[in-house]
Amino acid sequence: MANVLQIRVAYADTDQMGMVYYGNYLTFYERGRTELLREAGLPYSVIEKRGFYFPVIYAECSYHAPAKYDDLITIETRLSEITAASITCSYAVKNGDKVLVTGKTKHPFVNKSLKPVRFPQDIRELLEKYLEKGN
Amino acid sequence: MANVLQIRVAYADTDQMGMVYYGNYLTFYERGRTELLREAGLPYSVIEKRGFYFPVIYAECSYHAPAKYDDLITIETRLSEITAASITCSYAVKNGDKVLVTGKTKHPFVNKSLKPVRFPQDIRELLEKYLEKGN
Amino acid sequence: MANVLQIRVAYADTDQMGMVYYGNYLTFYERGRTELLREAGLPYSVIEKRGFYFPVIYAECSYHAPAKYDDLITIETRLSEITAASITCSYAVKNGDKVLVTGKTKHPFVNKSLKPVRFPQDIRELLEKYLEKGN
Amino acid sequence: MANVLQIRVAYADTDQMGMVYYGNYLTFYERGRTELLREAGLPYSVIEKRGFYFPVIYAECSYHAPAKYDDLITIETRLSEITAASITCSYAVKNGDKVLVTGKTKHPFVNKSLKPVRFPQDIRELLEKYLEKGN
Repeated sequence: MANVLQIRVAYADTDQMGMVYYGNYLTFYERGRTELLREAGLPYSVIEKRGFYFPVIYAECSYHAPAKYDDLITIETRLSEITAASITCSYAVKNGDKVLVTGKTKHPFVNKSLKPVRFPQDIRELLEKYLEKGN
Repeated sequence: MANVLQIRVAYADTDQMGMVYYGNYLTFYERGRTELLREAGLPYSVIEKRGFYFPVIYAECSYHAPAKYDDLITIETRLSEITAASITCSYAVKNGDKVLVTGKTKHPFVNKSLKPVRFPQDIRELLEKYLEKGN
Repeated sequence: MANVLQIRVAYADTDQMGMVYYGNYLTFYERGRTELLREAGLPYSVIEKRGFYFPVIYAECSYHAPAKYDDLITIETRLSEITAASITCSYAVKNGDKVLVTGKTKHPFVNKSLKPVRFPQDIRELLEKYLEKGN
Repeated sequence: MANVLQIRVAYADTDQMGMVYYGNYLTFYERGRTELLREAGLPYSVIEKRGFYFPVIYAECSYHAPAKYDDLITIETRLSEITAASITCSYAVKNGDKVLVTGKTKHPFVNKSLKPVRFPQDIRELLEKYLEKGN
Protein backbone atom coordinates (compact mmCIF):
# COMPACT_ATOMS: atom_id res chain seq x y z
CA MET A 1 0.00 0.00 0.00
CA ALA A 2 1.22 3.43 -0.87
CA ASN A 3 0.08 6.78 0.34
CA VAL A 4 -0.64 8.95 -2.68
CA LEU A 5 -0.40 12.72 -2.31
CA GLN A 6 -0.88 15.33 -5.01
CA ILE A 7 1.27 18.46 -5.01
CA ARG A 8 1.14 21.45 -7.34
CA VAL A 9 4.68 22.63 -8.23
CA ALA A 10 5.13 26.28 -7.20
CA TYR A 11 7.42 28.88 -8.75
CA ALA A 12 9.29 28.78 -5.44
CA ASP A 13 10.15 25.13 -6.12
CA THR A 14 11.85 25.87 -9.45
CA ASP A 15 15.36 27.02 -10.28
CA GLN A 16 16.81 28.78 -13.30
CA MET A 17 17.02 25.55 -15.29
CA GLY A 18 13.20 25.79 -15.32
CA MET A 19 12.66 22.66 -13.23
CA VAL A 20 12.24 21.74 -9.57
CA TYR A 21 15.47 22.30 -7.58
CA TYR A 22 16.94 18.92 -6.60
CA GLY A 23 16.82 19.53 -2.86
CA ASN A 24 13.10 20.28 -2.88
CA TYR A 25 12.19 16.66 -3.52
CA LEU A 26 13.21 15.94 0.09
CA THR A 27 10.42 18.31 1.12
CA PHE A 28 8.02 16.46 -1.19
CA TYR A 29 9.15 13.20 0.47
CA GLU A 30 8.45 14.71 3.89
CA ARG A 31 4.95 15.70 2.82
CA GLY A 32 4.33 12.15 1.59
CA ARG A 33 5.74 10.61 4.78
CA THR A 34 3.55 12.83 6.92
CA GLU A 35 0.43 11.69 5.08
CA LEU A 36 1.52 8.02 5.24
CA LEU A 37 1.87 8.26 9.03
CA ARG A 38 -1.51 9.99 9.29
CA GLU A 39 -3.05 7.24 7.13
CA ALA A 40 -1.46 4.64 9.42
CA GLY A 41 -3.22 6.25 12.41
CA LEU A 42 -0.01 7.87 13.67
CA PRO A 43 -0.06 11.61 12.89
CA TYR A 44 3.50 12.84 13.34
CA SER A 45 2.26 15.78 15.42
CA VAL A 46 0.87 13.22 17.89
CA ILE A 47 4.14 11.27 17.93
CA GLU A 48 5.94 14.51 18.86
CA LYS A 49 3.38 15.30 21.57
CA ARG A 50 4.16 11.89 23.10
CA GLY A 51 7.84 12.89 23.25
CA PHE A 52 9.19 10.98 20.27
CA TYR A 53 10.75 11.95 16.94
CA PHE A 54 11.60 10.33 13.62
CA PRO A 55 14.76 12.22 12.57
CA VAL A 56 16.41 11.27 9.27
CA ILE A 57 19.69 9.35 9.20
CA TYR A 58 19.79 8.59 5.49
CA ALA A 59 18.17 9.99 2.36
CA GLU A 60 18.70 9.33 -1.33
CA CYS A 61 17.18 10.53 -4.59
CA SER A 62 17.50 9.27 -8.16
CA TYR A 63 16.43 11.90 -10.66
CA HIS A 64 14.98 10.43 -13.87
CA ALA A 65 13.08 13.39 -15.35
CA PRO A 66 12.30 16.90 -14.15
CA ALA A 67 9.10 18.18 -12.55
CA LYS A 68 8.21 21.61 -13.88
CA TYR A 69 6.30 24.68 -12.76
CA ASP A 70 2.56 24.12 -12.30
CA ASP A 71 2.83 20.34 -12.80
CA LEU A 72 0.34 18.48 -10.64
CA ILE A 73 2.65 15.71 -9.42
CA THR A 74 1.92 12.73 -7.21
CA ILE A 75 4.10 11.48 -4.38
CA GLU A 76 3.74 7.74 -3.74
CA THR A 77 5.13 6.89 -0.32
CA ARG A 78 5.62 3.34 0.93
CA LEU A 79 6.67 2.00 4.31
CA SER A 80 9.33 -0.41 3.06
CA GLU A 81 10.92 -1.68 6.30
CA ILE A 82 10.38 -1.69 10.07
CA THR A 83 13.13 -2.68 12.50
CA ALA A 84 13.04 -2.66 16.31
CA ALA A 85 13.65 1.07 16.36
CA SER A 86 13.51 2.49 12.85
CA ILE A 87 11.47 2.74 9.67
CA THR A 88 12.48 3.07 6.04
CA CYS A 89 10.21 4.80 3.54
CA SER A 90 10.48 4.68 -0.24
CA TYR A 91 9.14 7.25 -2.66
CA ALA A 92 8.14 7.67 -6.29
CA VAL A 93 7.39 11.15 -7.57
CA LYS A 94 5.30 10.92 -10.73
CA ASN A 95 3.66 13.13 -13.33
CA GLY A 96 0.75 10.98 -14.48
CA ASP A 97 2.32 7.59 -15.17
CA LYS A 98 5.79 9.00 -15.74
CA VAL A 99 8.23 8.38 -12.89
CA LEU A 100 10.28 11.53 -12.26
CA VAL A 101 12.21 10.86 -9.07
CA THR A 102 12.58 7.85 -6.77
CA GLY A 103 14.28 7.52 -3.42
CA LYS A 104 14.21 6.43 0.17
CA THR A 105 14.75 7.75 3.67
CA LYS A 106 15.61 5.96 6.93
CA HIS A 107 14.37 7.17 10.32
CA PRO A 108 15.37 5.99 13.78
CA PHE A 109 12.73 6.33 16.49
CA VAL A 110 14.16 8.54 19.25
CA ASN A 111 13.12 10.20 22.47
CA LYS A 112 13.50 13.87 23.41
CA SER A 113 17.21 13.33 24.16
CA LEU A 114 17.54 12.01 20.57
CA LYS A 115 18.38 8.53 21.95
CA PRO A 116 17.07 5.63 19.84
CA VAL A 117 14.28 3.77 21.63
CA ARG A 118 12.12 0.76 20.83
CA PHE A 119 8.64 1.46 19.52
CA PRO A 120 5.85 1.51 22.12
CA GLN A 121 3.55 -1.48 21.50
CA ASP A 122 0.68 0.54 20.00
CA ILE A 123 2.93 2.40 17.58
CA ARG A 124 4.63 -0.85 16.48
CA GLU A 125 1.27 -2.45 15.83
CA LEU A 126 -0.01 0.42 13.74
CA LEU A 127 3.19 0.49 11.67
CA GLU A 128 3.11 -3.29 11.14
CA LYS A 129 -0.54 -3.23 10.17
CA TYR A 130 0.24 -0.55 7.56
CA LEU A 131 3.25 -2.50 6.27
CA GLU A 132 1.22 -5.69 5.91
CA LYS A 133 -1.38 -3.92 3.80
CA GLY A 134 1.43 -3.19 1.36
CA ASN A 135 2.18 -6.90 0.73
CA MET B 1 26.15 52.53 10.84
CA ALA B 2 25.19 49.58 8.71
CA ASN B 3 26.21 45.98 9.01
CA VAL B 4 27.50 44.83 5.64
CA LEU B 5 27.31 41.15 4.77
CA GLN B 6 28.31 39.49 1.51
CA ILE B 7 26.27 36.58 0.17
CA ARG B 8 26.87 34.47 -2.92
CA VAL B 9 23.59 33.73 -4.73
CA ALA B 10 23.08 29.95 -5.00
CA TYR B 11 21.17 28.04 -7.66
CA ALA B 12 18.75 27.15 -4.85
CA ASP B 13 17.92 30.85 -4.50
CA THR B 14 16.84 31.24 -8.14
CA ASP B 15 13.55 30.48 -9.88
CA GLN B 16 12.69 29.81 -13.49
CA MET B 17 12.75 33.52 -14.38
CA GLY B 18 16.51 33.18 -13.82
CA MET B 19 16.59 35.47 -10.79
CA VAL B 20 16.36 35.20 -7.02
CA TYR B 21 12.86 34.14 -5.90
CA TYR B 22 11.14 37.08 -4.18
CA GLY B 23 10.63 35.32 -0.85
CA ASN B 24 14.32 34.53 -0.46
CA TYR B 25 15.22 38.15 0.23
CA LEU B 26 13.58 37.74 3.64
CA THR B 27 16.21 35.08 4.35
CA PHE B 28 18.91 37.50 3.20
CA TYR B 29 17.43 40.11 5.57
CA GLU B 30 17.55 37.57 8.41
CA ARG B 31 21.23 36.87 7.70
CA GLY B 32 21.98 40.61 7.78
CA ARG B 33 19.96 41.12 10.98
CA THR B 34 21.81 38.27 12.69
CA GLU B 35 25.15 39.86 11.86
CA LEU B 36 23.96 43.31 12.95
CA LEU B 37 22.97 41.91 16.36
CA ARG B 38 26.30 40.09 16.63
CA GLU B 39 28.12 43.33 15.75
CA ALA B 40 26.09 45.13 18.44
CA GLY B 41 27.33 42.62 21.03
CA LEU B 42 24.01 40.77 21.14
CA PRO B 43 24.29 37.47 19.24
CA TYR B 44 20.75 36.25 18.68
CA SER B 45 21.67 32.77 19.92
CA VAL B 46 22.56 34.39 23.27
CA ILE B 47 19.28 36.34 23.34
CA GLU B 48 17.44 33.02 22.89
CA LYS B 49 19.48 31.35 25.62
CA ARG B 50 18.36 34.13 27.97
CA GLY B 51 14.76 33.23 27.15
CA PHE B 52 13.89 36.02 24.72
CA TYR B 53 12.96 36.18 21.05
CA PHE B 54 12.65 38.78 18.31
CA PRO B 55 9.78 37.41 16.20
CA VAL B 56 8.70 39.39 13.13
CA ILE B 57 5.42 41.32 13.09
CA TYR B 58 5.95 43.22 9.84
CA ALA B 59 8.13 42.82 6.76
CA GLU B 60 8.22 44.61 3.43
CA CYS B 61 10.32 44.43 0.28
CA SER B 62 10.60 46.76 -2.71
CA TYR B 63 12.15 45.02 -5.69
CA HIS B 64 14.10 47.36 -7.99
CA ALA B 65 16.30 44.96 -9.96
CA PRO B 66 16.95 41.23 -9.79
CA ALA B 67 19.86 39.43 -8.16
CA LYS B 68 21.07 36.57 -10.32
CA TYR B 69 22.83 33.26 -9.89
CA ASP B 70 26.42 33.52 -8.64
CA ASP B 71 26.14 37.28 -7.98
CA LEU B 72 28.16 38.30 -4.94
CA ILE B 73 25.62 40.60 -3.34
CA THR B 74 25.85 42.73 -0.21
CA ILE B 75 23.19 43.10 2.45
CA GLU B 76 23.34 46.43 4.27
CA THR B 77 21.35 46.22 7.49
CA ARG B 78 20.55 49.21 9.68
CA LEU B 79 18.89 49.48 13.07
CA SER B 80 16.43 52.22 12.21
CA GLU B 81 14.28 52.45 15.35
CA ILE B 82 14.14 51.28 18.98
CA THR B 83 10.98 51.54 21.08
CA ALA B 84 10.40 50.32 24.64
CA ALA B 85 9.90 46.78 23.44
CA SER B 86 10.69 46.52 19.71
CA ILE B 87 13.25 47.23 17.03
CA THR B 88 12.90 48.07 13.36
CA CYS B 89 15.61 47.14 10.87
CA SER B 90 16.01 48.45 7.33
CA TYR B 91 17.82 46.74 4.50
CA ALA B 92 19.44 47.44 1.15
CA VAL B 93 20.50 44.49 -1.00
CA LYS B 94 23.10 45.64 -3.52
CA ASN B 95 25.22 44.31 -6.35
CA GLY B 96 28.24 46.63 -6.23
CA ASP B 97 26.72 50.12 -6.11
CA LYS B 98 23.45 49.05 -7.68
CA VAL B 99 20.53 48.81 -5.26
CA LEU B 100 18.48 45.69 -6.01
CA VAL B 101 16.01 45.38 -3.15
CA THR B 102 15.16 47.53 -0.13
CA GLY B 103 12.91 46.83 2.81
CA LYS B 104 12.32 46.75 6.51
CA THR B 105 11.21 44.43 9.28
CA LYS B 106 9.76 45.13 12.74
CA HIS B 107 10.42 42.89 15.74
CA PRO B 108 8.79 42.96 19.18
CA PHE B 109 10.93 41.73 22.04
CA VAL B 110 9.09 38.80 23.68
CA ASN B 111 9.61 36.18 26.36
CA LYS B 112 9.19 32.41 26.04
CA SER B 113 5.40 32.79 26.24
CA LEU B 114 5.65 35.19 23.26
CA LYS B 115 4.47 38.07 25.48
CA PRO B 116 6.06 41.44 24.64
CA VAL B 117 8.45 42.57 27.39
CA ARG B 118 10.63 45.64 27.95
CA PHE B 119 14.28 45.28 27.11
CA PRO B 120 16.59 44.34 30.00
CA GLN B 121 18.89 47.29 30.75
CA ASP B 122 22.04 45.76 29.22
CA ILE B 123 20.29 44.83 26.00
CA ARG B 124 18.71 48.28 25.69
CA GLU B 125 22.11 49.93 26.18
CA LEU B 126 23.79 47.81 23.53
CA LEU B 127 21.00 48.48 21.04
CA GLU B 128 21.08 52.23 21.73
CA LYS B 129 24.83 52.36 21.43
CA TYR B 130 24.58 50.67 18.03
CA LEU B 131 21.79 53.01 16.91
CA GLU B 132 23.77 56.10 17.93
CA LYS B 133 26.75 55.02 15.85
CA GLY B 134 24.42 55.17 12.86
CA ASN B 135 23.71 58.88 13.25
CA MET C 1 -14.35 37.30 -4.63
CA ALA C 2 -11.39 35.58 -3.09
CA ASN C 3 -9.59 32.50 -4.21
CA VAL C 4 -9.40 30.12 -1.26
CA LEU C 5 -6.57 27.59 -1.16
CA GLN C 6 -5.83 25.09 1.58
CA ILE C 7 -2.22 24.28 2.46
CA ARG C 8 -0.88 21.78 4.97
CA VAL C 9 2.11 23.23 6.86
CA ALA C 10 5.17 20.99 6.40
CA TYR C 11 8.10 20.49 8.75
CA ALA C 12 10.18 22.18 6.04
CA ASP C 13 8.11 25.35 6.54
CA THR C 14 8.91 25.61 10.26
CA ASP C 15 11.90 27.06 12.10
CA GLN C 16 13.30 26.46 15.57
CA MET C 17 10.70 28.75 17.18
CA GLY C 18 8.26 25.98 16.25
CA MET C 19 6.31 28.10 13.75
CA VAL C 20 6.34 28.87 10.04
CA TYR C 21 9.44 30.86 9.03
CA TYR C 22 8.40 34.40 8.13
CA GLY C 23 9.72 34.28 4.57
CA ASN C 24 7.67 31.21 3.69
CA TYR C 25 4.42 33.17 3.70
CA LEU C 26 5.56 34.75 0.42
CA THR C 27 5.54 31.24 -1.04
CA PHE C 28 2.03 30.73 0.34
CA TYR C 29 1.02 34.03 -1.30
CA GLU C 30 2.48 32.81 -4.60
CA ARG C 31 0.45 29.60 -4.38
CA GLY C 32 -2.70 31.60 -3.73
CA ARG C 33 -1.95 34.04 -6.57
CA THR C 34 -1.38 31.16 -8.99
CA GLU C 35 -4.79 29.69 -8.14
CA LEU C 36 -6.48 33.09 -8.39
CA LEU C 37 -5.09 33.56 -11.92
CA ARG C 38 -6.17 30.03 -12.84
CA GLU C 39 -9.65 30.76 -11.48
CA ALA C 40 -9.74 33.96 -13.54
CA GLY C 41 -9.07 31.92 -16.67
CA LEU C 42 -5.42 33.05 -16.90
CA PRO C 43 -3.13 30.22 -15.76
CA TYR C 44 0.28 31.77 -15.14
CA SER C 45 1.97 29.03 -17.15
CA VAL C 46 -0.09 30.19 -20.15
CA ILE C 47 0.84 33.84 -19.54
CA GLU C 48 4.50 32.81 -19.62
CA LYS C 49 4.01 30.80 -22.81
CA ARG C 50 2.60 33.95 -24.42
CA GLY C 51 5.85 35.71 -23.50
CA PHE C 52 4.71 37.73 -20.50
CA TYR C 53 5.57 37.72 -16.80
CA PHE C 54 4.19 39.14 -13.56
CA PRO C 55 7.37 39.79 -11.54
CA VAL C 56 6.99 41.27 -8.05
CA ILE C 57 7.92 44.89 -7.33
CA TYR C 58 6.49 45.12 -3.82
CA ALA C 59 5.52 42.68 -1.08
CA GLU C 60 4.48 43.14 2.53
CA CYS C 61 3.40 40.89 5.38
CA SER C 62 1.82 41.64 8.75
CA TYR C 63 2.23 38.74 11.16
CA HIS C 64 -0.59 38.49 13.71
CA ALA C 65 -0.27 34.88 14.95
CA PRO C 66 1.90 31.95 13.95
CA ALA C 67 0.99 29.01 11.72
CA LYS C 68 2.35 25.77 13.13
CA TYR C 69 3.43 22.37 11.86
CA ASP C 70 0.61 20.28 10.39
CA ASP C 71 -1.90 23.13 10.54
CA LEU C 72 -4.30 23.04 7.63
CA ILE C 73 -4.29 26.72 6.77
CA THR C 74 -6.25 28.64 4.14
CA ILE C 75 -4.86 31.32 1.86
CA GLU C 76 -7.49 33.85 0.76
CA THR C 77 -6.22 35.79 -2.24
CA ARG C 78 -7.97 38.82 -3.68
CA LEU C 79 -7.29 40.87 -6.79
CA SER C 80 -7.43 44.29 -5.17
CA GLU C 81 -6.36 46.62 -8.00
CA ILE C 82 -5.74 46.67 -11.75
CA THR C 83 -3.89 49.52 -13.47
CA ALA C 84 -2.94 49.84 -17.14
CA ALA C 85 0.03 47.56 -16.65
CA SER C 86 -0.02 46.05 -13.16
CA ILE C 87 -2.09 44.17 -10.63
CA THR C 88 -2.12 44.22 -6.84
CA CYS C 89 -3.14 41.16 -4.83
CA SER C 90 -4.04 41.03 -1.15
CA TYR C 91 -3.84 38.00 1.08
CA ALA C 92 -5.20 36.65 4.35
CA VAL C 93 -3.67 33.46 5.75
CA LYS C 94 -6.09 31.87 8.21
CA ASN C 95 -6.38 28.88 10.51
CA GLY C 96 -10.13 28.35 10.64
CA ASP C 97 -11.55 31.80 11.36
CA LYS C 98 -8.36 33.06 12.95
CA VAL C 99 -6.37 35.48 10.79
CA LEU C 100 -2.65 34.65 11.04
CA VAL C 101 -0.96 36.79 8.42
CA THR C 102 -2.15 39.48 5.99
CA GLY C 103 -0.34 41.21 3.18
CA LYS C 104 -0.18 42.32 -0.40
CA THR C 105 2.00 42.12 -3.48
CA LYS C 106 2.21 44.33 -6.57
CA HIS C 107 3.07 42.97 -10.01
CA PRO C 108 3.86 44.87 -13.19
CA PHE C 109 2.99 43.11 -16.43
CA VAL C 110 6.20 42.76 -18.46
CA ASN C 111 7.46 41.19 -21.66
CA LYS C 112 10.46 38.87 -22.07
CA SER C 113 12.84 41.86 -21.86
CA LEU C 114 11.23 42.68 -18.50
CA LYS C 115 9.80 45.91 -19.94
CA PRO C 116 6.36 46.91 -18.58
CA VAL C 117 3.67 46.56 -21.23
CA ARG C 118 -0.07 47.19 -21.34
CA PHE C 119 -2.32 44.19 -20.92
CA PRO C 120 -3.52 42.53 -24.13
CA GLN C 121 -7.29 43.06 -24.45
CA ASP C 122 -8.29 39.49 -23.55
CA ILE C 123 -6.12 39.43 -20.44
CA ARG C 124 -7.41 42.81 -19.27
CA GLU C 125 -11.00 41.62 -19.71
CA LEU C 126 -10.47 38.44 -17.73
CA LEU C 127 -8.77 40.37 -14.92
CA GLU C 128 -11.53 42.99 -14.82
CA LYS C 129 -14.24 40.37 -14.84
CA TYR C 130 -12.56 38.68 -11.86
CA LEU C 131 -12.15 42.00 -10.04
CA GLU C 132 -15.82 42.90 -10.56
CA LYS C 133 -16.96 39.63 -9.02
CA GLY C 134 -15.19 40.76 -5.87
CA ASN C 135 -17.30 43.88 -5.46
CA MET D 1 42.14 18.12 -2.62
CA ALA D 2 38.91 19.37 -1.18
CA ASN D 3 37.24 22.70 -1.58
CA VAL D 4 36.46 24.07 1.86
CA LEU D 5 33.59 26.52 2.26
CA GLN D 6 32.32 28.06 5.47
CA ILE D 7 28.59 28.65 5.93
CA ARG D 8 26.76 30.28 8.83
CA VAL D 9 23.53 28.39 9.63
CA ALA D 10 20.54 30.74 9.36
CA TYR D 11 17.23 30.56 11.20
CA ALA D 12 15.70 29.85 7.79
CA ASP D 13 17.75 26.64 7.63
CA THR D 14 16.32 25.24 10.87
CA ASP D 15 13.11 23.36 11.61
CA GLN D 16 11.11 22.90 14.79
CA MET D 17 13.45 20.15 16.04
CA GLY D 18 15.94 23.01 16.45
CA MET D 19 18.35 21.72 13.80
CA VAL D 20 18.99 22.16 10.08
CA TYR D 21 16.15 20.67 7.99
CA TYR D 22 17.43 17.55 6.20
CA GLY D 23 16.75 18.81 2.69
CA ASN D 24 18.83 21.95 3.19
CA TYR D 25 22.09 19.99 3.14
CA LEU D 26 21.56 19.55 -0.60
CA THR D 27 21.75 23.34 -0.88
CA PHE D 28 24.96 23.30 1.18
CA TYR D 29 26.32 20.65 -1.20
CA GLU D 30 25.44 22.88 -4.16
CA ARG D 31 27.29 25.79 -2.60
CA GLY D 32 30.36 23.58 -2.07
CA ARG D 33 30.17 22.18 -5.62
CA THR D 34 29.94 25.70 -7.07
CA GLU D 35 33.09 26.74 -5.23
CA LEU D 36 34.92 23.53 -6.25
CA LEU D 37 34.16 24.22 -9.91
CA ARG D 38 35.30 27.84 -9.51
CA GLU D 39 38.51 26.64 -7.83
CA ALA D 40 39.04 24.21 -10.74
CA GLY D 41 38.85 27.15 -13.16
CA LEU D 42 35.34 26.27 -14.34
CA PRO D 43 32.81 28.65 -12.81
CA TYR D 44 29.40 27.07 -13.30
CA SER D 45 27.99 30.36 -14.62
CA VAL D 46 30.57 30.13 -17.45
CA ILE D 47 29.66 26.49 -18.15
CA GLU D 48 26.03 27.61 -18.54
CA LYS D 49 27.01 30.50 -20.81
CA ARG D 50 28.75 27.97 -23.08
CA GLY D 51 25.45 26.09 -23.32
CA PHE D 52 26.12 23.21 -20.94
CA TYR D 53 24.63 22.08 -17.64
CA PHE D 54 25.48 19.69 -14.80
CA PRO D 55 22.02 18.53 -13.66
CA VAL D 56 21.84 16.03 -10.79
CA ILE D 57 20.88 12.40 -11.42
CA TYR D 58 21.68 11.05 -7.96
CA ALA D 59 22.10 12.48 -4.48
CA GLU D 60 22.51 10.90 -1.07
CA CYS D 61 23.02 12.12 2.48
CA SER D 62 24.02 10.30 5.68
CA TYR D 63 23.10 12.32 8.76
CA HIS D 64 25.43 11.69 11.72
CA ALA D 65 24.80 14.73 13.93
CA PRO D 66 22.77 17.90 13.55
CA ALA D 67 23.96 21.34 12.55
CA LYS D 68 22.28 24.02 14.63
CA TYR D 69 21.34 27.67 14.33
CA ASP D 70 24.31 30.04 14.09
CA ASP D 71 26.85 27.20 13.78
CA LEU D 72 29.73 28.14 11.50
CA ILE D 73 29.96 24.91 9.56
CA THR D 74 32.40 23.87 6.83
CA ILE D 75 31.50 22.07 3.62
CA GLU D 76 34.35 19.94 2.27
CA THR D 77 33.67 19.07 -1.36
CA ARG D 78 35.74 16.59 -3.36
CA LEU D 79 35.66 15.62 -7.02
CA SER D 80 35.61 11.87 -6.55
CA GLU D 81 35.10 10.56 -10.08
CA ILE D 82 35.16 11.69 -13.72
CA THR D 83 33.71 9.57 -16.53
CA ALA D 84 33.42 10.44 -20.23
CA ALA D 85 30.35 12.54 -19.58
CA SER D 86 29.76 12.88 -15.84
CA ILE D 87 31.29 13.83 -12.52
CA THR D 88 30.67 12.60 -9.00
CA CYS D 89 31.26 14.86 -6.00
CA SER D 90 31.49 13.81 -2.37
CA TYR D 91 30.81 15.99 0.63
CA ALA D 92 31.53 16.23 4.34
CA VAL D 93 29.71 18.86 6.38
CA LYS D 94 31.62 19.53 9.60
CA ASN D 95 31.42 21.64 12.73
CA GLY D 96 35.07 22.00 13.66
CA ASP D 97 36.46 18.45 13.51
CA LYS D 98 33.06 16.85 14.04
CA VAL D 99 31.54 15.29 10.93
CA LEU D 100 27.82 16.09 10.79
CA VAL D 101 26.67 14.94 7.36
CA THR D 102 28.33 13.11 4.47
CA GLY D 103 27.09 12.39 0.98
CA LYS D 104 27.59 12.44 -2.73
CA THR D 105 25.97 13.68 -5.92
CA LYS D 106 26.35 12.53 -9.53
CA HIS D 107 26.07 14.92 -12.49
CA PRO D 108 25.89 14.11 -16.19
CA PHE D 109 27.27 16.77 -18.52
CA VAL D 110 24.45 17.83 -20.87
CA ASN D 111 23.72 20.36 -23.58
CA LYS D 112 20.77 22.75 -23.78
CA SER D 113 18.49 19.93 -24.92
CA LEU D 114 19.52 18.06 -21.75
CA LYS D 115 21.25 15.39 -23.89
CA PRO D 116 24.43 13.92 -22.30
CA VAL D 117 27.53 15.02 -24.19
CA ARG D 118 31.27 14.34 -23.84
CA PHE D 119 33.31 17.00 -22.11
CA PRO D 120 35.00 19.55 -24.40
CA GLN D 121 38.80 19.03 -24.21
CA ASP D 122 39.51 22.12 -22.08
CA ILE D 123 36.82 21.28 -19.54
CA ARG D 124 38.01 17.67 -19.29
CA GLU D 125 41.59 18.83 -18.70
CA LEU D 126 40.63 21.25 -15.94
CA LEU D 127 38.51 18.60 -14.19
CA GLU D 128 41.29 16.00 -14.45
CA LYS D 129 43.89 18.41 -13.17
CA TYR D 130 41.67 19.12 -10.16
CA LEU D 131 41.04 15.43 -9.56
CA GLU D 132 44.78 14.62 -9.68
CA LYS D 133 45.55 17.22 -7.03
CA GLY D 134 43.27 15.21 -4.76
CA ASN D 135 45.41 12.06 -4.93
